[in-house]
Amino acid sequence: MQRYKCKVAYDGSQFSGYQIQPNQRTVQGELEKALEKLHKGKETKVFASGRTDAGVHARGQMIHFDSPFSIPEEKWPVALNALLPDEISILEVEKAESDFHARFDVTGKEYRYFVYTSKVRDPFRRHYAYHYPYALNLVTIKKASQYLLGTHDFTSFCSAKTEVEDRVRELREIEVLEEGDMLVFRFVGNGFLYNMVRILVGTLLQIGAGEILSDEIPAILAKKDRIYAGKTAPPQGLYLWKVDYENNS
Amino acid sequence: MQRYKCKVAYDGSQFSGYQIQPNQRTVQGELEKALEKLHKGKETKVFASGRTDAGVHARGQMIHFDSPFSIPEEKWPVALNALLPDEISILEVEKAESDFHARFDVTGKEYRYFVYTSKVRDPFRRHYAYHYPYALNLVTIKKASQYLLGTHDFTSFCSAKTEVEDRVRELREIEVLEEGDMLVFRFVGNGFLYNMVRILVGTLLQIGAGEILSDEIPAILAKKDRIYAGKTAPPQGLYLWKVDYENNS
Repeated sequence: MQRYKCKVAYDGSQFSGYQIQPNQRTVQGELEKALEKLHKGKETKVFASGRTDAGVHARGQMIHFDSPFSIPEEKWPVALNALLPDEISILEVEKAESDFHARFDVTGKEYRYFVYTSKVRDPFRRHYAYHYPYALNLVTIKKASQYLLGTHDFTSFCSAKTEVEDRVRELREIEVLEEGDMLVFRFVGNGFLYNMVRILVGTLLQIGAGEILSDEIPAILAKKDRIYAGKTAPPQGLYLWKVDYENNS
Repeated sequence: MQRYKCKVAYDGSQFSGYQIQPNQRTVQGELEKALEKLHKGKETKVFASGRTDAGVHARGQMIHFDSPFSIPEEKWPVALNALLPDEISILEVEKAESDFHARFDVTGKEYRYFVYTSKVRDPFRRHYAYHYPYALNLVTIKKASQYLLGTHDFTSFCSAKTEVEDRVRELREIEVLEEGDMLVFRFVGNGFLYNMVRILVGTLLQIGAGEILSDEIPAILAKKDRIYAGKTAPPQGLYLWKVDYENNS
């Protein structure tokens, strides 16, 4: 058996999220179906760096799987893409050590969140960015970002349904880039909690709108309670952009 | 009654084209439904600069309609967009003379066709550009464009189903722009026949691939028969970009 490590992009808008679920169309479900076809009916389990929610996209999701086939690395994307729906694209495949694990070996992740601020909505971005046609103060957003940087308990910034006990995460980079009428929020960290990026963006937008003050961030973090942070921004603006492992990046 | 002239964008991927048809989801059907709601059940007919096929998009389709309401121009987009599906967006509305006609007054149109050439397909562009992952010679494409420029009988470059008798059209501009892995074909003319842009692009791609020679264009035009031109490029790459009238542009 050979372990393969694989970079995958997908348009999440028509999926019930990444993770396989009975009677739902999921990215994992489609990946495993394609691998099963390729392996002539033999079930092949796929392990990802983490799940993404319904409507959330990926430019650089990472997965691994094992195969008895020794297809050359560059042939794999063509072979798999022919068996996958066109909302999913295998971008790169490389051979990995047999103990490589797409989830347990993650050293960092980058998410991006796209917001567009034009007065009138754009039909071509309805599934791919969040339309926020109101005035935003970027100065206060950037000031708030500075408070969020670093290692904190992010309990206030994750879904109340979060099951994991340890909510301490390190946010290594937060950037807010303006590209025409598009605002791009870039988050790099060692790991992200359930809904964390969407709650961070929702809160930063409320700060930009003057509904929450930048200086309230330390107190919101200290409360360790979801109800103190802002709204959860909708899924369509969010992209899992890049996953880092020891040997790449 | 006041006549309104309106600029509309739509994502054509989920519509059976622009023109209203029984039991089909069409752009015109949705526009008329929204106007009927706004006018409390009174039917309102919409006239467009021309139709677009299933899967074809518009950034600058132009329509007109009459309304007894004297809503200020800047309030119209918000009022109508609230009643329209989010694949359609009213971008601008302005008052027009009572004899303005969105179709009969057209003096020129611009279409753009997007082709992307990356080796691996991109799930985010599947409905919005044509994936052509093969080598293309831009020099021969540009040479062929020069033969197409100007006033010609474009019978060879329109669907065999074209009903209009006069197939002489003036192509005023053809440009091929490279933007990263995207090729943008820009066509400006006084009018376009059924499938004309898609057949022009399909033929230019075959010229870029070496399957047809640039120098064959004059002979293809002279044949006045669809079978001599190249393939019809698929709809998802095509955008009605801009419509010109006497007083704008």
